Amino acid sequence: MRAAVMRHNRLEVEDLPTPEPGPGEVLVKTLACGICGSDLHALKHTRELVEGARRSGGPFIMDLEREVVMGHEFCAETLDYGPDTPRRYEAGTRVCAMPVLIRGSKLDTIGYSNDHPGGYGEFMRLSSQLLVPVPNGLTTEHAALTEPMAVGVHAVAKARLEGDDVPLVIGCGPVGLAVIAALKLAGVAPIVAADYSARRRELALAMGADVVVDPGVDSPYDSWRAAAVWGDAGRAPSLPPWVPGPALRPAVMFECVGVPGVIEQIMVAAPPATRVIVVGVCMQRDSLEPMFGINKELNLQFVLGYSRDEFAATLRHIAEGELLVAPLITGKVGVEGVADAFAALASPDTHAKILVEPWHA
Amino acid sequence: MRAAVMRHNRLEVEDLPTPEPGPGEVLVKTLACGICGSDLHALKHTRELVEGARRSGGPFIMDLEREVVMGHEFCAETLDYGPDTPRRYEAGTRVCAMPVLIRGSKLDTIGYSNDHPGGYGEFMRLSSQLLVPVPNGLTTEHAALTEPMAVGVHAVAKARLEGDDVPLVIGCGPVGLAVIAALKLAGVAPIVAADYSARRRELALAMGADVVVDPGVDSPYDSWRAAAVWGDAGRAPSLPPWVPGPALRPAVMFECVGVPGVIEQIMVAAPPATRVIVVGVCMQRDSLEPMFGINKELNLQFVLGYSRDEFAATLRHIAEGELLVAPLITGKVGVEGVADAFAALASPDTHAKILVEPWHA
Repeated sequence: MRAAVMRHNRLEVEDLPTPEPGPGEVLVKTLACGICGSDLHALKHTRELVEGARRSGGPFIMDLEREVVMGHEFCAETLDYGPDTPRRYEAGTRVCAMPVLIRGSKLDTIGYSNDHPGGYGEFMRLSSQLLVPVPNGLTTEHAALTEPMAVGVHAVAKARLEGDDVPLVIGCGPVGLAVIAALKLAGVAPIVAADYSARRRELALAMGADVVVDPGVDSPYDSWRAAAVWGDAGRAPSLPPWVPGPALRPAVMFECVGVPGVIEQIMVAAPPATRVIVVGVCMQRDSLEPMFGINKELNLQFVLGYSRDEFAATLRHIAEGELLVAPLITGKVGVEGVADAFAALASPDTHAKILVEPWHA
Repeated sequence: MRAAVMRHNRLEVEDLPTPEPGPGEVLVKTLACGICGSDLHALKHTRELVEGARRSGGPFIMDLEREVVMGHEFCAETLDYGPDTPRRYEAGTRVCAMPVLIRGSKLDTIGYSNDHPGGYGEFMRLSSQLLVPVPNGLTTEHAALTEPMAVGVHAVAKARLEGDDVPLVIGCGPVGLAVIAALKLAGVAPIVAADYSARRRELALAMGADVVVDPGVDSPYDSWRAAAVWGDAGRAPSLPPWVPGPALRPAVMFECVGVPGVIEQIMVAAPPATRVIVVGVCMQRDSLEPMFGINKELNLQFVLGYSRDEFAATLRHIAEGELLVAPLITGKVGVEGVADAFAALASPDTHAKILVEPWHA
């Protein structure tokens, strides 16, 4: 099969053997697969990524000398089943799936693995029990956004929102935009979002943000404060009694940038009792002053991925039009276009999500 | 009045004017006041403490050129009331109080202030509305432990314990011991606790720990794992599906050391989905790798102090014998003995809590 292959920090189109489905597995034809920011990072910093994963128990374990077909945000079509595998769906059924292959008690990733090619190739093998059929009427390109949108749905679930919370989203790349859509779905308002890029602020508004801020011009935290003042002169009930806080609604702040320094920036600027949800994937060492956390009784919740139920619910919400995805898609390429698409995605002012369609002419 | 006074990083006994109670305030005679680890830190690192507080919104705002009477863990006796102040308790009533003076909408600390002397002096002024009377039958020295024990009660409340949680307490100084007592009160078991000092491990057992570990000999995290294995072969429900975690009960780990590196040590060694409660007060910059938090979906809850209700409940629990405090008291001194007591407390193998009794002969 033809695939965009990563090797030695480069992407090239190669012919690879078609993967063979084992017991409990399904061979699928890739219809569309989104390019994720983590893939951009993985291409540039493969060695650090793998070393970090080994130390921290992460999923990115690969042999750098061998080829990797990335791509974990996919919609595909069932072709054939492995041995001893119940034929749950007829051939040609469109499906999404978590990018994970279950083999006994072992879980392998799809798309960050030497053995299990991801969606930047024409075929994949998936675990039959993880398939979720795409509802009729939902386009393939929108279904392919299930995976990144599930990241937002999960992050918002981990935030344990309560009625009065006012969210601030720091960074409006694909992760921040997914968080905004999930906050909108959760019915929380106003949603404040910050990004240096005008294009991304525009997308944030399209996805459901109520207030957008350019941190080069205004402080996102001041804009959050202006949006979070209580109607009455009451005092937030969660403040420790010696904190002379202003009368603000509770703060939930989503770190969606993933570079060193942003967690501390939030800890310094956040009001007391803020819950910080760390969704951005910062792969370097970071530093902070615990006293900001202590004096303000901050909570840091690190998150990764989503559950099976959240993944299936996300696809359902997209199909029902409750989770907006259309504004995210800014380009499409075939396997030959993957390398250029990676380069184009480095500029935040042009693209949000580029879909790879391996069968694209 | 006679008081142990901090000035230029030294403690000396001086004669100071007796504080005058303002409206809403009460003049009290100090009966007993515990020496807190933060006081030791404040004496050694006053300038860093004040600078850190200014930056992070902390309570330790003092003019270093002027005298400070520390001491914020006290039991006292009412003497007189300020102007326009209802006489809620008759003279001679024993009381505890949060070390905070309420003046209009302003909250000042008692014991880390140039204006409001703490319990290392013969008299204090307290806010009338914060007084909590000491139940008959409770000794003054045990009542004086209300403040440090409330820190443990609050930390455990912020941990939002659920039935299956297994706690690990890292560090068994006064803060760790208060956490252990509060965990025991909450009915959670087994309680695993770690400290390099044999004396402190002995105190940890006396306060309610079920398993104690010397980190110089065994890994506290391995000991925690051994204590936390589920009875059946079930899998902890909170694990993300791609984490091949062993079948362990949920982890709640209390950081009660407060020096750089301990938060990261816990993040590296903790199992997935661990909640880390940061109770130790680390006043320096710290560093960590966010990937450990991300890959394991850790939660960091920083805590400080306690609420008014928690403070009052702590005194009640001590009076009812539900919160053990007796093992903590390892010494008593008068104001002349405060400087020596600070020196003695530097060695963890001798003392836990030394009480200052300013009227002690």
